[in-house]
Amino acid sequence: MPAILVLHGPNLNLLGQRETSMYGSLTLAEVDAAIAQHAAARGVKVECRQSNHEGALVDAIQQAADQGFAAVVLNPGAFTHYSYALRDAIAAVAVPVVEIHLSNIHAREPFRQRSVTAPACRGQISGFGPQSYLLGLDAALACLAGR
Amino acid sequence: MPAILVLHGPNLNLLGQRETSMYGSLTLAEVDAAIAQHAAARGVKVECRQSNHEGALVDAIQQAADQGFAAVVLNPGAFTHYSYALRDAIAAVAVPVVEIHLSNIHAREPFRQRSVTAPACRGQISGFGPQSYLLGLDAALACLAGR
Amino acid sequence: MPAILVLHGPNLNLLGQRETSMYGSLTLAEVDAAIAQHAAARGVKVECRQSNHEGALVDAIQQAADQGFAAVVLNPGAFTHYSYALRDAIAAVAVPVVEIHLSNIHAREPFRQRSVTAPACRGQISGFGPQSYLLGLDAALACLAGR
Amino acid sequence: MPAILVLHGPNLNLLGQRETSMYGSLTLAEVDAAIAQHAAARGVKVECRQSNHEGALVDAIQQAADQGFAAVVLNPGAFTHYSYALRDAIAAVAVPVVEIHLSNIHAREPFRQRSVTAPACRGQISGFGPQSYLLGLDAALACLAGR
Amino acid sequence: MPAILVLHGPNLNLLGQRETSMYGSLTLAEVDAAIAQHAAARGVKVECRQSNHEGALVDAIQQAADQGFAAVVLNPGAFTHYSYALRDAIAAVAVPVVEIHLSNIHAREPFRQRSVTAPACRGQISGFGPQSYLLGLDAALACLAGR
Amino acid sequence: MPAILVLHGPNLNLLGQRETSMYGSLTLAEVDAAIAQHAAARGVKVECRQSNHEGALVDAIQQAADQGFAAVVLNPGAFTHYSYALRDAIAAVAVPVVEIHLSNIHAREPFRQRSVTAPACRGQISGFGPQSYLLGLDAALACLAGR
Amino acid sequence: MPAILVLHGPNLNLLGQRETSMYGSLTLAEVDAAIAQHAAARGVKVECRQSNHEGALVDAIQQAADQGFAAVVLNPGAFTHYSYALRDAIAAVAVPVVEIHLSNIHAREPFRQRSVTAPACRGQISGFGPQSYLLGLDAALACLAGR
Amino acid sequence: MPAILVLHGPNLNLLGQRETSMYGSLTLAEVDAAIAQHAAARGVKVECRQSNHEGALVDAIQQAADQGFAAVVLNPGAFTHYSYALRDAIAAVAVPVVEIHLSNIHAREPFRQRSVTAPACRGQISGFGPQSYLLGLDAALACLAGR
Amino acid sequence: MPAILVLHGPNLNLLGQRETSMYGSLTLAEVDAAIAQHAAARGVKVECRQSNHEGALVDAIQQAADQGFAAVVLNPGAFTHYSYALRDAIAAVAVPVVEIHLSNIHAREPFRQRSVTAPACRGQISGFGPQSYLLGLDAALACLAGR
Amino acid sequence: MPAILVLHGPNLNLLGQRETSMYGSLTLAEVDAAIAQHAAARGVKVECRQSNHEGALVDAIQQAADQGFAAVVLNPGAFTHYSYALRDAIAAVAVPVVEIHLSNIHAREPFRQRSVTAPACRGQISGFGPQSYLLGLDAALACLAGR
Amino acid sequence: MPAILVLHGPNLNLLGQRETSMYGSLTLAEVDAAIAQHAAARGVKVECRQSNHEGALVDAIQQAADQGFAAVVLNPGAFTHYSYALRDAIAAVAVPVVEIHLSNIHAREPFRQRSVTAPACRGQISGFGPQSYLLGLDAALACLAGR
Amino acid sequence: MPAILVLHGPNLNLLGQRETSMYGSLTLAEVDAAIAQHAAARGVKVECRQSNHEGALVDAIQQAADQGFAAVVLNPGAFTHYSYALRDAIAAVAVPVVEIHLSNIHAREPFRQRSVTAPACRGQISGFGPQSYLLGLDAALACLAGR
Repeated sequence: MPAILVLHGPNLNLLGQRETSMYGSLTLAEVDAAIAQHAAARGVKVECRQSNHEGALVDAIQQAADQGFAAVVLNPGAFTHYSYALRDAIAAVAVPVVEIHLSNIHAREPFRQRSVTAPACRGQISGFGPQSYLLGLDAALACLAGR
Repeated sequence: MPAILVLHGPNLNLLGQRETSMYGSLTLAEVDAAIAQHAAARGVKVECRQSNHEGALVDAIQQAADQGFAAVVLNPGAFTHYSYALRDAIAAVAVPVVEIHLSNIHAREPFRQRSVTAPACRGQISGFGPQSYLLGLDAALACLAGR
Repeated sequence: MPAILVLHGPNLNLLGQRETSMYGSLTLAEVDAAIAQHAAARGVKVECRQSNHEGALVDAIQQAADQGFAAVVLNPGAFTHYSYALRDAIAAVAVPVVEIHLSNIHAREPFRQRSVTAPACRGQISGFGPQSYLLGLDAALACLAGR
Repeated sequence: MPAILVLHGPNLNLLGQRETSMYGSLTLAEVDAAIAQHAAARGVKVECRQSNHEGALVDAIQQAADQGFAAVVLNPGAFTHYSYALRDAIAAVAVPVVEIHLSNIHAREPFRQRSVTAPACRGQISGFGPQSYLLGLDAALACLAGR
Repeated sequence: MPAILVLHGPNLNLLGQRETSMYGSLTLAEVDAAIAQHAAARGVKVECRQSNHEGALVDAIQQAADQGFAAVVLNPGAFTHYSYALRDAIAAVAVPVVEIHLSNIHAREPFRQRSVTAPACRGQISGFGPQSYLLGLDAALACLAGR
Repeated sequence: MPAILVLHGPNLNLLGQRETSMYGSLTLAEVDAAIAQHAAARGVKVECRQSNHEGALVDAIQQAADQGFAAVVLNPGAFTHYSYALRDAIAAVAVPVVEIHLSNIHAREPFRQRSVTAPACRGQISGFGPQSYLLGLDAALACLAGR
Repeated sequence: MPAILVLHGPNLNLLGQRETSMYGSLTLAEVDAAIAQHAAARGVKVECRQSNHEGALVDAIQQAADQGFAAVVLNPGAFTHYSYALRDAIAAVAVPVVEIHLSNIHAREPFRQRSVTAPACRGQISGFGPQSYLLGLDAALACLAGR
Repeated sequence: MPAILVLHGPNLNLLGQRETSMYGSLTLAEVDAAIAQHAAARGVKVECRQSNHEGALVDAIQQAADQGFAAVVLNPGAFTHYSYALRDAIAAVAVPVVEIHLSNIHAREPFRQRSVTAPACRGQISGFGPQSYLLGLDAALACLAGR
Repeated sequence: MPAILVLHGPNLNLLGQRETSMYGSLTLAEVDAAIAQHAAARGVKVECRQSNHEGALVDAIQQAADQGFAAVVLNPGAFTHYSYALRDAIAAVAVPVVEIHLSNIHAREPFRQRSVTAPACRGQISGFGPQSYLLGLDAALACLAGR
Repeated sequence: MPAILVLHGPNLNLLGQRETSMYGSLTLAEVDAAIAQHAAARGVKVECRQSNHEGALVDAIQQAADQGFAAVVLNPGAFTHYSYALRDAIAAVAVPVVEIHLSNIHAREPFRQRSVTAPACRGQISGFGPQSYLLGLDAALACLAGR
Repeated sequence: MPAILVLHGPNLNLLGQRETSMYGSLTLAEVDAAIAQHAAARGVKVECRQSNHEGALVDAIQQAADQGFAAVVLNPGAFTHYSYALRDAIAAVAVPVVEIHLSNIHAREPFRQRSVTAPACRGQISGFGPQSYLLGLDAALACLAGR
Repeated sequence: MPAILVLHGPNLNLLGQRETSMYGSLTLAEVDAAIAQHAAARGVKVECRQSNHEGALVDAIQQAADQGFAAVVLNPGAFTHYSYALRDAIAAVAVPVVEIHLSNIHAREPFRQRSVTAPACRGQISGFGPQSYLLGLDAALACLAGR
């Protein structure tokens, strides 16, 4: 049974508390519960972590394989738009990384439409609210199946 | 049982014949079969169409609701990058449209990274090969469930 | 009695059905009726056509003179922003073409402010809702009178 | 009977004296006479003023309502391309302002194609010579009728 | 007791009459009264002037020292974005000039985020409504104290 | 004896009727005759088609090999500057495509200097009037010989 | 008595040690003392913190309200120019944040003139040396008073 | 004996008082005296005027011929960089206008290197301090001689 | 019998020695032989020269007519992308110049896609390997025939 | 005997494990050993550290002098391209910092060619694999000798 | 009696032979004669040289002082727009260099409006035909007088 | 014993004579002596040449191998910023080329920060004064050792 690491980037710990018209009213705990339920239905283990620290996310991606994760579902939050360190970490590891976004970043401010991390990921899913995480999980499993 | 319209844009009829390292070796018929199988498993009807004509795709999106479709999964192909007519059609109809891409467009030439249609869609899924269509179908169903 | 061809570009057939705060609540049929009434008051014949197909609009502009039209009033819709084929057709024919827009495109998204077709037209009228068509008709008549 | 203020921007006092291939051979006095005649036919009062001073045009727009004008037809001349002060004045007043240009600015040098004032106006009419003023008058009346 | 000149740029005479959600509902007279009260509390004389004319503001800045002002608090209004003449005047005089804005210009349209006058000022205060003037007065006094 | 398909893009059906100083005074029929004569001299079959419809040209390129053509000589007309669909069709087929232009596009307006289709072609020939087609035919034959 | 959190971004701990012509010769401890004195005079509590770690500043802004702070005065240092994570944190919390800068960033290198954090703040104060903090404190109090 | 009008733009009345390392230590009166002396040596009449008001300079250029001037030597000051109104005035009159600058604008900040007025002038002289006016006078006389 | 000058720009003397996948494995001597053979078949004289010195190529183009050449076939090599001196030489002489490239420059790095010399040439041929020279010869002859 | 601090930025801990065609097959430990050996040969002490955390690198540079280091050799990794915080730290300390890169960043993607940290360093060495560190050490020693 | 070196850049040897509407009908020999006559009237020696070779012009500027020239009048021709080598030579020598142009480069194509050499010169004179050289000579003498 | 060719680009013959704060006070002869001494210590032969002529440098790079040089250390001077001919020469030869700069080009004017030659070199060393040449020599030897 493969294990998947779900990484939430900066400010996602505030989910459901403010800007709910953009990001929805579910809290991060509720989203994590939905992810866990979906993973269980797919028969995979999942672990969810959040950090506001770029370095911590880089560390997590680097260590994912050693910690037994077969794939990563990553919502880089604002780091999407400038963290080349995160991009290089994704490019440097063998585990597939799937980038997801709650909102449709292609319909937002110009700076949010550009992802510097996506080119190093297997693909990107954007715009389906918390459902983006579940689709990301399925996409990660498809990547693993496709090897 | 809702019905979903799957639209393939220009040159997708050549799928599996050339540039297979980028787009995979499945033919469009094989992809359509996989979509049909996935739809059946989800309990939804699906219809797949392909066109090289921008106007035909605009017509199809405009008429989707009248033809009984509850949602559209759209791979705009090269129209992704310049067809504001397609974008306006998507924005003008009530049925949700999900944009999908076989390849990870964020990792390709600059002109392919920009989607003029995505801002009018509910979201975008990019990079998972034929699996992108199946994820797009699930995303469309999630949009319908979320209403 | 001169005849004027009024051409509606892509998605204008949906007029009055959605995005009414931007484009008004009149349907295309109602707009066409207002145009016909205005033309009658001016003593000119008018014919209105709509197409979502770029090639069909190019054909129509090329054939306008042969079909007896002395001028064209054109709302290129989304083609305004990228159809150099339409621009070349306008530049290649002798009949004067007047470009009109329902909304004030100069007050909208950057991509909508740029018209690639206007440089080949006699002029552009933008921002007066359905009234733009009537002003366009008058402008076309002025062009004819000015020859 | 509503009154309309027609404002001519910088260098329009030289109309008909030079660059006649671009701007026509009518003098400003002759254009004003044509405007007056058109206004009379429409049953409205009209007053025409010209200034080379940006501040004077800002003042005029601010005071138009108090001086009994129901709408303004404005040819901003070169101020079109950089006078954000004029734009703010237009945005700050309740009377509708219609921007007009003698030449088709969309077919000219890049700097002339960009209007910083048009976004604050109701709409823009460009390219029909002195006829642009008459169409602008009709557009202004349509704005008043549409309230 | 030092004297401070407060200069209001174009369209600020309309303050409180329109666009109140952006600029607040206080009139310019009320703002000037608040400035006078604040100045009195600080023990400084203050004089407030408004003009829609760029040249008049350039003249005022040039003559400030001769008229006995020790510093200038300037809201350049729309001139902020293009008046290099104002910038050169600020750079050419010895009295310190503090630029202030009612709204947070950094959160507005791209053209409003750029100030061509600020580089010649001592500093810029933006976003605190009428309070920006009072903070600007304090900043000007700090500049004088710091000499 | 190989067969070559010559494709004329939008508005080329008007050749010789207007803008003759730019495109020459030969009609499309006369150009096609010259191409046929040149092909005959080279001992190859040739077929010439024109369309104003982007989709029709995409279809033609996709079907060229199945219809027995060994190479394509393509004048994309205005599609040169924006039709990524045409570019993708050219890239997706095995038959060599040679892009030609009547005028020297490198000496014209900025938008005409950029070809989005040329990168997918074997090469580009521009600026020699109808002779460009004959040179294109020879270039296509050289591509076939060089395999 | 409200409490205000003052946050100093990266490298501000070196204040007064180098580049004193740009940033002044006061050390951070001396600046903090001046802030404390000013706060005392205003009857508010204040706490000053400095960090070179982006994540630590994001954490601090997220936790400010829970820790009893009514507002934040923030000098983001170099993060001003790229930290979208900081911007999102500011936008996600209810406490008002005032951005301040020691130097006049509008008069410096192009990259320093652009603030990605300012759009999410209430306003920005720039250019008055350590006095910028004191003005920022007053601005924060005005924001609280204005609620 | 021809008469030449010398126009000094905004802030040139402060010449010699500040920024002397850039603009020299001569006052405007002293520069005007040098111009008068040079004109006398050339046997021409000269009149020098200065204004901080764009409209006043536009008026002066428009009226130069009627006031008996055969040519204009213009230092547009900061208007060089944005006054399209001044440019249009220069283009609209028959008298030759020579643009001059005290400093070498090509060696200064990017915005100062661009002249929007120079394209409408006969030529531009830049970088020779007050001597630029004398060379400009000679250039104007050469333009008159060359007719 | 007309004579044609073939000019090879910088680094073409290394042809066939390195980067053969881009430029082919024929040496310059072999290419020159093929050109001579083609010219002989066309009944024209041809002379081939190569230089790494921009000035030498400018001289050659200037002197071509005096040396009895009726046309020039030019491969500017890297000078294509920046030598305005070469462009001016081409524009200044009466002999027609045809620009050719071995590789398809439109499919290469951005800087190679831009030709500053092509606007002054009659046309450009790019992408057919050594065959580009032979097509260029034919194009030059067509230019001569077309006079 | 001076001591040199060698700082490795994000993802350099993965050296030698992946992307070896770009970065070489030596591990970071092996590179550190080579650095130590080179330092010993030069008679200097050296200490090597790696971090994925921007703040940790900023801290290290700030504290280098206090910890007894006379110079820093820095490979900023991905921070090269956006960390203005690192740049400011380098500019704020007195110890010379030498920037080095394993790969030739000038030959890579556009974003990698731009270094925001290099302007604050003494110089940059790029493209010589692990040898870049040894050259950087020598460069640092030269900086120290040159004081 | 000071000596002045006049340097003519590439293609100026063709002066008067072609493009006479832009550059005038005088040949270079006639221009040189006019320069010599003007120099004689001013009591200075002058020597005129022309080269199509960038390196030759760099050499000439470097050696000017050693060859007894007190100043240089330089028409860089097309090198104006890209020769940083020429710019560096001008910046590296002590003799003043005055840049001149026959045509008004500010009124021409965008690439001709930009001078990379002018920032290193004392000033630039542009637009007065052969008279530009005479004004340049006077400007050079003024530079010498001003030392 | 390998031989290394050191090439100095334009204006480096003036080294030590002017702009010494940027480039140092050593003359080129002194720098060459230091290079020779360093080469001797490394046991390699070295030859130093300087030219202001781009073509001469292209020739030298092309002929380096035939003349017995195993590597080239190149300071392209101003050619760094535009000589694609030099870049192509470097790319076309087998000998490794190391680019060096005296000053830290990354800290200078924007145009100097961009090297068009570096992508074809093995690497670049910038900012260490004459020491850059010595480091470049060592880098070249490392390239040779690494083969």
